[in-house]
Amino acid sequence: MSALSEFDIIRVYFQKNTVKRGDVVLGIGDDAALLQCAPDQLLVAATDTLIENVHFPKETRAEDIAYKALAVNLSDLAAMGAEPLWFLLALTLPTADARWLEAFSQGLFELARPYDLQLAGGDTTRGPLSITIQVLGRVPSQQALLRSGAQSGDKIYVSGTLGDAGLGLKLCQRGIKLPEEAGQFFLERLHRPQPQIQLGLLLRGGANSAIDLSDGLVADLGHLLTSSQVGARIEVNQLPLSPHLKAALPLEEAQGLALHAGDDYELCFTVPEKEETRLLRQIHAAGFSCTAIGEIRETQGLELVGYSRPLVQAGYRHFP
Amino acid sequence: MSALSEFDIIRVYFQKNTVKRGDVVLGIGDDAALLQCAPDQLLVAATDTLIENVHFPKETRAEDIAYKALAVNLSDLAAMGAEPLWFLLALTLPTADARWLEAFSQGLFELARPYDLQLAGGDTTRGPLSITIQVLGRVPSQQALLRSGAQSGDKIYVSGTLGDAGLGLKLCQRGIKLPEEAGQFFLERLHRPQPQIQLGLLLRGGANSAIDLSDGLVADLGHLLTSSQVGARIEVNQLPLSPHLKAALPLEEAQGLALHAGDDYELCFTVPEKEETRLLRQIHAAGFSCTAIGEIRETQGLELVGYSRPLVQAGYRHFP
Repeated sequence: MSALSEFDIIRVYFQKNTVKRGDVVLGIGDDAALLQCAPDQLLVAATDTLIENVHFPKETRAEDIAYKALAVNLSDLAAMGAEPLWFLLALTLPTADARWLEAFSQGLFELARPYDLQLAGGDTTRGPLSITIQVLGRVPSQQALLRSGAQSGDKIYVSGTLGDAGLGLKLCQRGIKLPEEAGQFFLERLHRPQPQIQLGLLLRGGANSAIDLSDGLVADLGHLLTSSQVGARIEVNQLPLSPHLKAALPLEEAQGLALHAGDDYELCFTVPEKEETRLLRQIHAAGFSCTAIGEIRETQGLELVGYSRPLVQAGYRHFP
Repeated sequence: MSALSEFDIIRVYFQKNTVKRGDVVLGIGDDAALLQCAPDQLLVAATDTLIENVHFPKETRAEDIAYKALAVNLSDLAAMGAEPLWFLLALTLPTADARWLEAFSQGLFELARPYDLQLAGGDTTRGPLSITIQVLGRVPSQQALLRSGAQSGDKIYVSGTLGDAGLGLKLCQRGIKLPEEAGQFFLERLHRPQPQIQLGLLLRGGANSAIDLSDGLVADLGHLLTSSQVGARIEVNQLPLSPHLKAALPLEEAQGLALHAGDDYELCFTVPEKEETRLLRQIHAAGFSCTAIGEIRETQGLELVGYSRPLVQAGYRHFP
């Protein structure tokens, strides 16, 4: 049993380790943080909670829990084309375990540091393990990427590869056997999603709309289509699958994961024809991979071409 | 069992009911909210979590849980002298119960509406009942009230009365018997704390420091003293006690609650002599009650005058 108070926890594991930014007038240690906003930009705010046994299995390492809790929040900012600046951490712990906290803090700042993202405040309480992060960022007015901007005729793109995190989750849940290296790859994709911040910044002023893939392509693209009041046609054989996923599963099963499994945290975005060449050149020049998977059309609904299984519209639902 | 999805929950109980502000460019329904900051003001950000059986008993009504979850966050902004603008809600629920959600939403917006405070986003997940709110506000640069500004010679003030919520908690926990009206008073003070936003705005530019009383006067004033590197002398017989509290308990017990019990969410602030007359006139003209309870002095430590019980320095600790 540890004698750490919540004040020790904040000071020792969090306040000390965060990067310090010049636009944080007052960080951890008062009733609230004081932050300096840029005059010509919009503030971008998102929050996401991860809960033990809901968002991650009980055995997940503390550094991975922290990494993912921050990554899923950053992913929301990426989908807006925003630059992350600051975050708040509400951490609920059953006990104050120094080793666990050390690892958690390390995973958290491992992701925060390269983005020069400062932990500016938070709250530590006792209870069932749960992490809520609120991330704050900025985007120039008029340049934010919305779900509602897709236009008929836009090409639909996704970044990276899809379905890998879905197989990672199956590995955790069912103990599927895979060669060591492949297993590691899928677990890494599940536990350490890479928020597509840099790609989001590139898409500003080029893409018509964007969303991040947290609940699965069909579900999340569905939100984008609803917001934009349009439909889409997806070429299932164009879905980008990793070599590991293609090796691990029959094609149709791999495609099923790419369509319906969540947790990839890639971006799905739509691009008007006139911007396509320029934008793709920039994306590839910056070293990002993205793949055209279909097209936005006026007729509402989502058509999957080249896929014989029945379409499951829902992604993960918390209250089935 | 309900068939509400998290999307229904957000739409039906939250998106529809929130006030809409002109500086919210994009609210609920995308990956993040887009908010317009005032160019000459600092952004103020705070977060607090309430957890069932830790911060409120299991039988607490949904509308009271929501009210208090928002109130404790607003109280942090009050302690900074900030004006609240927007909030995000991370709500974790064991089940999606329509009646519970209706009541929760009602309690939430009952408090938010008078402040013209817009719910701009959030996250709904399944798990043990827990509410994390992040509140965002603004304060003109240089006018924020800090914990660290207290100066030797400042008078120490508290708003309202102290210890009432502490007795409310005892009523919940131990089934102490009290006359109906008194019982109601203490429970109201526990479940429906009034964030001192208006008072915080008045204190700008007059008080040297402020903190809100969440953990109890001795603990919270202790934070303020530590931040300011000063000490204090408190006249225990000056502590403002409600008539109900004086009627319910022997004086020394009532004073014990006023010193050590949490959850009052009154403000404790320090005022330099030269500002005292002017500031008090304004405070009283605005209809607020506040009481001088002691003085800041250079010698560190907290001296309680007129109190014979041993001094308990700690407030509520989550990890004892």
